[in-house]
Amino acid sequence: MSRPSSEHLFLRACRREPVERTPIWMMRQAGRYLPAYRAVRSRASFLDLCRTPELACEVTLQPIDEFGFDAAILFSDILITLPPMGLDVAFPESGPKILTPIRTREAIDALVVPDPVDALPYSLEAIRLIQKGLNGRVPLIGFAGAPLTMLTYAVEGGGSKDYPQTKKLLYGDPQAAHALLDKLARTCASFLEAQVEAGADAVQIFDSWGGIVSPGDFREYPLRYAKQVIAQLRASPTFAKRNVPIIYFVNGCAPYLDDYASSGADVLGVDWRVGIDEVRRRVGDGVALQGNLDPGALFASPAEIRVRVADILERAGKTGHIFNLGHGVLPETNPEHVRAMVTAVKELSAHS
Amino acid sequence: MSRPSSEHLFLRACRREPVERTPIWMMRQAGRYLPAYRAVRSRASFLDLCRTPELACEVTLQPIDEFGFDAAILFSDILITLPPMGLDVAFPESGPKILTPIRTREAIDALVVPDPVDALPYSLEAIRLIQKGLNGRVPLIGFAGAPLTMLTYAVEGGGSKDYPQTKKLLYGDPQAAHALLDKLARTCASFLEAQVEAGADAVQIFDSWGGIVSPGDFREYPLRYAKQVIAQLRASPTFAKRNVPIIYFVNGCAPYLDDYASSGADVLGVDWRVGIDEVRRRVGDGVALQGNLDPGALFASPAEIRVRVADILERAGKTGHIFNLGHGVLPETNPEHVRAMVTAVKELSAHS
Repeated sequence: MSRPSSEHLFLRACRREPVERTPIWMMRQAGRYLPAYRAVRSRASFLDLCRTPELACEVTLQPIDEFGFDAAILFSDILITLPPMGLDVAFPESGPKILTPIRTREAIDALVVPDPVDALPYSLEAIRLIQKGLNGRVPLIGFAGAPLTMLTYAVEGGGSKDYPQTKKLLYGDPQAAHALLDKLARTCASFLEAQVEAGADAVQIFDSWGGIVSPGDFREYPLRYAKQVIAQLRASPTFAKRNVPIIYFVNGCAPYLDDYASSGADVLGVDWRVGIDEVRRRVGDGVALQGNLDPGALFASPAEIRVRVADILERAGKTGHIFNLGHGVLPETNPEHVRAMVTAVKELSAHS
Repeated sequence: MSRPSSEHLFLRACRREPVERTPIWMMRQAGRYLPAYRAVRSRASFLDLCRTPELACEVTLQPIDEFGFDAAILFSDILITLPPMGLDVAFPESGPKILTPIRTREAIDALVVPDPVDALPYSLEAIRLIQKGLNGRVPLIGFAGAPLTMLTYAVEGGGSKDYPQTKKLLYGDPQAAHALLDKLARTCASFLEAQVEAGADAVQIFDSWGGIVSPGDFREYPLRYAKQVIAQLRASPTFAKRNVPIIYFVNGCAPYLDDYASSGADVLGVDWRVGIDEVRRRVGDGVALQGNLDPGALFASPAEIRVRVADILERAGKTGHIFNLGHGVLPETNPEHVRAMVTAVKELSAHS
């Protein structure tokens, strides 16, 4: 098995090294918008896909073969760590549900910080299979949910509009919130370490709901525990030896730009609601940026998609930029429009 | 019937005139967190409340009597304008539903721009009753949904997480989107004009979902049509004669601060995810700001609420600030914590 060298385009961009063009991958690139994915999914439940290494490998490789993305990302779900912590999760079509959401300090104290080698062997085996399948073509990104985002699911029991249980816990019982976030941070970090030991070339920490708080609370909760995760990873010999890039993605990052770079990540994910040039001005030159096309912009015509891609490439500049959507691709997206985006990024960034 | 003079605290703050202390009101202050509201609501449906002037008046006055807010706001719902435009709306407990969401250009062309005097007489009558009930104690705010926000409901059929139908329309068929937004803007403006003619002392334009787009699309869609509404209001003799303040509120405004002040509003609403001092630096001194405590912060202890109120008062300064939550109060909120917030604002801003 050969691994992509540290010289691969995507990894060089993560480290702000010179690149011949801007690399691109897409959050949720292995997903429902893709007919080949839906074909696999018609034979297996979502959870079966996550827990069967051969199937996870198959759908992870599909968008690489189909569109030529510059990085693969493990097919899994951020909630995959909750069952081994002690929470029952179901994945109906209407969205994930935690059947026993956390409402007491006792429930927090009862949670386990699992050993991922024992608890999540299927994800680690999927990584080994994917690396065989990729055979060095592109790097593989591992991932996990950030502590604050995992807390929202654990206490709300699913998605939420206003996050009342989250805020009751954070502001009504901060001590208990910190105890829960610490367990979630240790779980997140040890799962990411295990993924890199299994062969992942980079990792992304998804703070999908890190953007629901005030700037002061951002420092106190999501950012503080993302830093804890990143510090644990930096202390890991595996990360240091292979110089594994860490991507931190906060959906809705615009209010926190003065603090965002202090996370310690190599790459900051940028959602679509903010200008990536504005982000660059505010976070400085010490990190790479990843983003930031509106997933909904893929409903535009291929010509309009090309105009929007050009605009982002110009705002981002060529060094330290990984092109991506600002959040996961929407299931209703036409795959040919994804192809138009990939083509535009590859052509326009090579000539700029 | 006596009307509050233009010298009332709230109106002076809207115009950035000197005030003896910072005024406060709260979005959704007449609502489910209040036992007196729930008592009325147990006897009538939500829509009955909106459409029965005596009941709308009763619940509008409750939080004024209970907490001493410095402004009342008409009890109604932003979706109230959709039925007279030609869309069926239902209000089940799970959230509003448009029974016939817009999916074609023909459906847009079939929409009516209603005359509010004929189409929404109950709201205008409620305003007259409320002004009698207030008897000059505090000013009354009228309101309507901003065009882009109304578009999201009209095309999604209700609330949404990713707004796929909205983005299909905006980016896939911009001409149709502009036609719909124009009708929604004219409906919004004429309803606000009618509310002021019926006696409202100020108006707020709610762009609850104006924050779901990129900065370029913010200028092209939500901001552009908010400007159209505001321009129509500025041209109205009633607005000019009484110098009626216009408040524009974008939930999630942080990415758009360089453009926000160009709306032409007297007051900009500020949600809780951004520092109000940062907003002031970016929008300049020409407008008042309204906000911006996290509604979820009312789950904190009264002592912690006071600390957070003090922080916002300090960041906002005394001139041109109306204290408010950063979005509507959550139904799970303890009314005594609302009282703690009001007391803190009144005491701390008077001594600062």
